[in-house]
Amino acid sequence: MKREDIKKLCRRAKAGSRKLALLDSETKSRILIAMSKGLIRGLPTILKENEKDVASARKRSLPGALIDRLTLNPSRIRSMADSLLKIAALKDPVGEVTETVKRPNGLIIKKVKVPIGVILIIYESRPNVTSDCIGLCLKSGNSVILRGGSEAIRSNIAIFDALNRAALRRGLPEDAMTMIKDTDRKLVNELLKQEGLIDLVMPRGGESLIREVSANSRIPVIKHYKGVCHTYIDKDADLKMAEDIAFNAKVQRPGVCNAMETMLVHKDASRDFLPVMIERFKHAGVEIRGCPKTRKIVKGILAAREDDWYAEYLDLILSVKVVEDIDEAIEHIMRYGSYHSDTIVTDNEAAASKFLKEVDSACVYVNASTRFTDGGEFGKGAEIGISTDKIHARGPMGLEELTSYKYLVYGNGQIRK
Amino acid sequence: MKREDIKKLCRRAKAGSRKLALLDSETKSRILIAMSKGLIRGLPTILKENEKDVASARKRSLPGALIDRLTLNPSRIRSMADSLLKIAALKDPVGEVTETVKRPNGLIIKKVKVPIGVILIIYESRPNVTSDCIGLCLKSGNSVILRGGSEAIRSNIAIFDALNRAALRRGLPEDAMTMIKDTDRKLVNELLKQEGLIDLVMPRGGESLIREVSANSRIPVIKHYKGVCHTYIDKDADLKMAEDIAFNAKVQRPGVCNAMETMLVHKDASRDFLPVMIERFKHAGVEIRGCPKTRKIVKGILAAREDDWYAEYLDLILSVKVVEDIDEAIEHIMRYGSYHSDTIVTDNEAAASKFLKEVDSACVYVNASTRFTDGGEFGKGAEIGISTDKIHARGPMGLEELTSYKYLVYGNGQIRK
Repeated sequence: MKREDIKKLCRRAKAGSRKLALLDSETKSRILIAMSKGLIRGLPTILKENEKDVASARKRSLPGALIDRLTLNPSRIRSMADSLLKIAALKDPVGEVTETVKRPNGLIIKKVKVPIGVILIIYESRPNVTSDCIGLCLKSGNSVILRGGSEAIRSNIAIFDALNRAALRRGLPEDAMTMIKDTDRKLVNELLKQEGLIDLVMPRGGESLIREVSANSRIPVIKHYKGVCHTYIDKDADLKMAEDIAFNAKVQRPGVCNAMETMLVHKDASRDFLPVMIERFKHAGVEIRGCPKTRKIVKGILAAREDDWYAEYLDLILSVKVVEDIDEAIEHIMRYGSYHSDTIVTDNEAAASKFLKEVDSACVYVNASTRFTDGGEFGKGAEIGISTDKIHARGPMGLEELTSYKYLVYGNGQIRK
Repeated sequence: MKREDIKKLCRRAKAGSRKLALLDSETKSRILIAMSKGLIRGLPTILKENEKDVASARKRSLPGALIDRLTLNPSRIRSMADSLLKIAALKDPVGEVTETVKRPNGLIIKKVKVPIGVILIIYESRPNVTSDCIGLCLKSGNSVILRGGSEAIRSNIAIFDALNRAALRRGLPEDAMTMIKDTDRKLVNELLKQEGLIDLVMPRGGESLIREVSANSRIPVIKHYKGVCHTYIDKDADLKMAEDIAFNAKVQRPGVCNAMETMLVHKDASRDFLPVMIERFKHAGVEIRGCPKTRKIVKGILAAREDDWYAEYLDLILSVKVVEDIDEAIEHIMRYGSYHSDTIVTDNEAAASKFLKEVDSACVYVNASTRFTDGGEFGKGAEIGISTDKIHARGPMGLEELTSYKYLVYGNGQIRK
């Protein structure tokens, strides 16, 4: 694929997006159901292609966690097909009127949700992203251009082809979904220059991918960045509740962005809380890296270094710090955190309200685990990711966050004086 | 000012933004009222400094229109002071809860409007932008960093100093407003690298400024781009109404972004409509550039070239095209327009509804002049500009569009299973 082809491909995607934007909800649902079936029909081919990706990843000695994310099996593919059915059943946000004002001059102004247009998704390894993103973009009336990583290219192509074939047969406009099947990295930079044709870029993957995309893109980017999430145990916390919440936030699924990476404990609670809590963590195989005060209270744990407070471990590792008061906790979160999800455990209403107000993260919790930051858990039905940006969408992004809006203005001859 | 100083300045602005975000509406209004008075007190100094800017612009032989926009007088300054009072009286969006959901597990999730954080505004010539942007950003709880053009630097500094002095005395947190007083262009590029400290950039000015900012910024940008606005006269239009709307859209204030640049006329209406309309335009000094069919109907007008369809004249010039049908009109608008504001004049409901649906512009009108695209006319009270982007904010941006949101999640011990 040549660089010049990228512009042509984007022009076609734009044209496709205009047709897709006009489809009614019923047609879109019918297409999504057909795609779900198409995925099941394509299962043998997808598995065969996936085996090749996995074999070549093994040959290149890629990390085990990556190979795990890359590997498909019939049950994973069936769950991708189920997700498409769920998306088909979700409420279509397109066309929803969110505001109507009548002006003194008689103009009626309606604010109505519309698709964004063309969305470019640049992602790494997990092939299920391919079908999830296609489903969510199509349901919200957006053309999607997918650019997956080379390690999953054969799986991605097989999934894309199965979905696209089924969708076209059911009336999906041409070029409403596009996959860049050439893994040449230069093409990414070319894609990022197509302002005016691509309306939004969402990079999903590691830190370096996200940094590179936002540094080079002329197109608006919504970043799905890291989650350095905190649990703060206040002096007025119910310590049993605190223990369960902190344990859940760290241990239930450590490899995801809404898992806790740092636990902050008020000094007045630290002597009662830390020994029991850390014992429970150790029992679950969690490595603890503590501040000097933590290490005074519980012996035999590693010392946290400055780096640890910034770290997204995505693993059974936890940094622990004893703080003087809630202000120090908030300062720590604002300084080292990633403004993703943070929680306070407290029975003190004033402390809860201060924490909710002053912690400027996408999701701020009182007395609950940060693990709930998720489109499904938030009632959005599905999510395309969790935005760590403050522009356009923040936190879990569902169908609604994949829309823009326009104003429809109804007059009867009004002119401006 | 050195490049290294930019990072320090942005860090201070970020710290200021956190304090500003916590101010209540009453305090912010009190500060805005004090700023309005401060501006009036500063009037003699501001005028004196403005005279220097104007003199140097004359010496550099800058265009007359630019000098006009640059020039202040007591009435212009008083109107800036009035705008601040109006902003003080507007409803504060910060803290507004826009959604509350209760999940089956008992979690209560509230979506609440919060300030964006630190907003960088890069603008050219008009010194009133300085006080408008400061007022709107402060009211919406955002720190603002202003970077005006060198041609207005003395005026901008005088306005900024008058406002800042008055505001600090009334309790504005330090560094909640910042002006880059050094006009070295290298500093702009340094500013555009401060992702994580600056949350949003809004360039306001000519096309080259906007292109440069969006090409170089690592920070999200909302563009206030050009307005190539269309009026389409349908075959079922009330031709008298069409004439008044088109005349208003072109002539009432040709130098603004919501003025009409191209008029499209259905072929069935063209013979009755064009001769009268063009006569009226010519009488008002409007230069017409027509398509071949237009020139057949009305003799003695210039031929439009391909360039004309893309042009934002901002002047008494109009391109005119006769179209076969509404589809050709929509195609033309989507191909050559800037997705700002477009209107159809028709009595045919099906045509109106097709136009509203298929024209993907920020503001789409039926039977009204495009000149109404404006924060005040839309009932937003004031505007910081008109976004031509589809991400975050589209069309007139008022206080509400200067906010982000966060989720507050209230639990009683919920953990994820």
